Amino acid sequence: MTGSPTDRSYAEQCDAADPLAGFRERFVQPDGQQLIYLDGNSLGMLPLATAERITSVMYREWGTGLIRSWDDWAGRPARAGDLLGQHLLGAAPGQVVVSDSTTVNLYKLARAALAARPGRPVVITDDDNFPTDRYVLSGVAAEHGGQVRLLTTGLATDAVRAAVDGQTALVCLSHVAYRSGAMADMAQITEIAHGHGALVLWDLCHSAGSVPVDLDGCGADLAVGCTYKYLNAGPGAPAYLYVRRDLQDQLRQPVQGWFGQRNQFEMGPVYQPVAGIGRFLTGTPDIIGISAVEEGARLLGEAGIGRIRRKGQQLTTYLIELADAWLAPLGFAVASPRDPDRRGSHVSLYHPDADLISQALITRGVVPDYRTPGRLRLGLAPVTTRFTDVWDALDCVRQITPGLAGRRPAAGP
Amino acid sequence: MTGSPTDRSYAEQCDAADPLAGFRERFVQPDGQQLIYLDGNSLGMLPLATAERITSVMYREWGTGLIRSWDDWAGRPARAGDLLGQHLLGAAPGQVVVSDSTTVNLYKLARAALAARPGRPVVITDDDNFPTDRYVLSGVAAEHGGQVRLLTTGLATDAVRAAVDGQTALVCLSHVAYRSGAMADMAQITEIAHGHGALVLWDLCHSAGSVPVDLDGCGADLAVGCTYKYLNAGPGAPAYLYVRRDLQDQLRQPVQGWFGQRNQFEMGPVYQPVAGIGRFLTGTPDIIGISAVEEGARLLGEAGIGRIRRKGQQLTTYLIELADAWLAPLGFAVASPRDPDRRGSHVSLYHPDADLISQALITRGVVPDYRTPGRLRLGLAPVTTRFTDVWDALDCVRQITPGLAGRRPAAGP
Repeated sequence: MTGSPTDRSYAEQCDAADPLAGFRERFVQPDGQQLIYLDGNSLGMLPLATAERITSVMYREWGTGLIRSWDDWAGRPARAGDLLGQHLLGAAPGQVVVSDSTTVNLYKLARAALAARPGRPVVITDDDNFPTDRYVLSGVAAEHGGQVRLLTTGLATDAVRAAVDGQTALVCLSHVAYRSGAMADMAQITEIAHGHGALVLWDLCHSAGSVPVDLDGCGADLAVGCTYKYLNAGPGAPAYLYVRRDLQDQLRQPVQGWFGQRNQFEMGPVYQPVAGIGRFLTGTPDIIGISAVEEGARLLGEAGIGRIRRKGQQLTTYLIELADAWLAPLGFAVASPRDPDRRGSHVSLYHPDADLISQALITRGVVPDYRTPGRLRLGLAPVTTRFTDVWDALDCVRQITPGLAGRRPAAGP
Repeated sequence: MTGSPTDRSYAEQCDAADPLAGFRERFVQPDGQQLIYLDGNSLGMLPLATAERITSVMYREWGTGLIRSWDDWAGRPARAGDLLGQHLLGAAPGQVVVSDSTTVNLYKLARAALAARPGRPVVITDDDNFPTDRYVLSGVAAEHGGQVRLLTTGLATDAVRAAVDGQTALVCLSHVAYRSGAMADMAQITEIAHGHGALVLWDLCHSAGSVPVDLDGCGADLAVGCTYKYLNAGPGAPAYLYVRRDLQDQLRQPVQGWFGQRNQFEMGPVYQPVAGIGRFLTGTPDIIGISAVEEGARLLGEAGIGRIRRKGQQLTTYLIELADAWLAPLGFAVASPRDPDRRGSHVSLYHPDADLISQALITRGVVPDYRTPGRLRLGLAPVTTRFTDVWDALDCVRQITPGLAGRRPAAGP
């Protein structure tokens, strides 16, 4: 690239050299491509292939095939899970299923884990973990007469090392933190937990599809994640869960539903969970949503997680470079790790007026996210974000921020 | 009607006089209208309005609106619940939400109920209840150190009266039984349970949308139901749950998810469930599925549950009349209540070769359901089933059954 990174022409050169640039055209373009969407880490864009697939599932499989389609649908939660495992999670077949929501899956696996570690009352997570993780874990721990021990130093490996002991049943952390974008060392933390006989449950919501995940390689025990962010499966699409093969038949999840039952259609008198990953299914699976997950997994598989990661690091590095040049003088501070190997694909910028700035950006066709307290969170989903999007968004931030200073309405009486 | 009910012209006259006949055209017609679909109580047909709505949610709300659509989506689980309550469940607003699967909702509400009745170890259900109900209840009861007491006489009010006592925490029954189609007396059973201080949880999967349900009028405590049968919301569409208003803030459901949290986006340190029905939500709701539920509820509301019930009774009565005339001599027995006021909108016919007969029917374009042991289950979803469908299907059964007798393959060595 030639010229200064603060020149728009620099961003244009980066886009021209981007091997993933063509993927953007495979998504529905909102507002005639005028929208600058930096929230793909909250809700990913709609792939054209997914729209076609949902239409086909709806008219052909449901509308015409009707109940006969269950012959094929019955295996879809596991097939979609295998696709995720292959392309994005580093999991061999038979260890991932698409099912329920992240919240419900967290509940199922945390309950199963605690039941498998009797006499150990402690669950470890961090105080910056996503709310639903903290809430679910506190409920599950209380049910077992235990407690949650909250780390206050984010995802630092040393903090985990200092906290885990023989009282620990479960360590549950986000691989990439939802607010700061910090990335945990999955291999090391898993090893530390195992050294004390504890299980580890990884939340992959903000990592899968944006950074390489190697569940099998790290020896991870359990994982969950959503599919509506980087996996582009749509609002509230079903989540997935991973259980390492050798653990599956040792664990018993609490929601004893008919889709986890051996010989399901014998409808026998007693719940007997099927062997393998299928026992972690519960009720009738969301077929339209699971089909969208398959399309998202295929699309990202084609882009390749290696290329996705490289572009994600380039995008976040470029954003931080522009933030340092333009926004630091306006009172912004980078609230994400500066080492590109220690962060995911979003960057948070602290500013006391981040909420007002976020609202003003949206009215100008730039969609960021706001996260309390004072974080402008900018998600740079690698397959749909251009370098010029980063330039344009930060240019907008630097233009509007001075006019917003001091504009905060006075607190009410 | 003139002529004999066993003449096809009789069925044609019934169709011509059917005030709901026009509704059938508002659904996608499989196989050029040649398919005779008697499984709408397993998977309802696809309404054209639902296909249009899903397409609009997909392209307009997700593809173009992206994250900005959450302003509207956030209230959709409760709005869809209110629509169901108004048109189909007899529930005033603020008591129903669309969320998760039936299995997960059963789990949440059964756990909440048992926690609200400490010291009472018994859950009552019946041995013919749908498998997921029995499995979930046995798991929940065991967690509380309790047990499930299984009625063996179906949904008979007297059996419930004899079983409930001061040890009973919860009575959980299907309003309409999945296999026999028998309908419980919701008002009387609820009153009996309340007389002993127990709570009642109704499973409405096989009743809502086909028979009038009056949750408020019966003083019911809790209910769950699926939306992919008579409500036509698609395979694995999200389920709903009902909690009577005055119970909501007394109950605490176990899956402490962020969608049940007060001031959700403050993402505070401690789980504090929102007041009201919202606390029974868990993770991010399935927006496409919930939108389909809204369309199904509106369509059935337009048809009117009174007209739906009348036609359902006429269809099932007609089916039994033909079965008595044609199929009894072939070894069939009616395995559903003969009193139309004591059954829902499906009829089961017992025959030792019901599985073979079911398979043979499917190859001839008649889709029934098979349920073990030996039940040919025929679902007559009132808005999509014609009287001639009943005639044609039973005519097919009487033609093929003699040729199948004795065709069962010998058991293996």
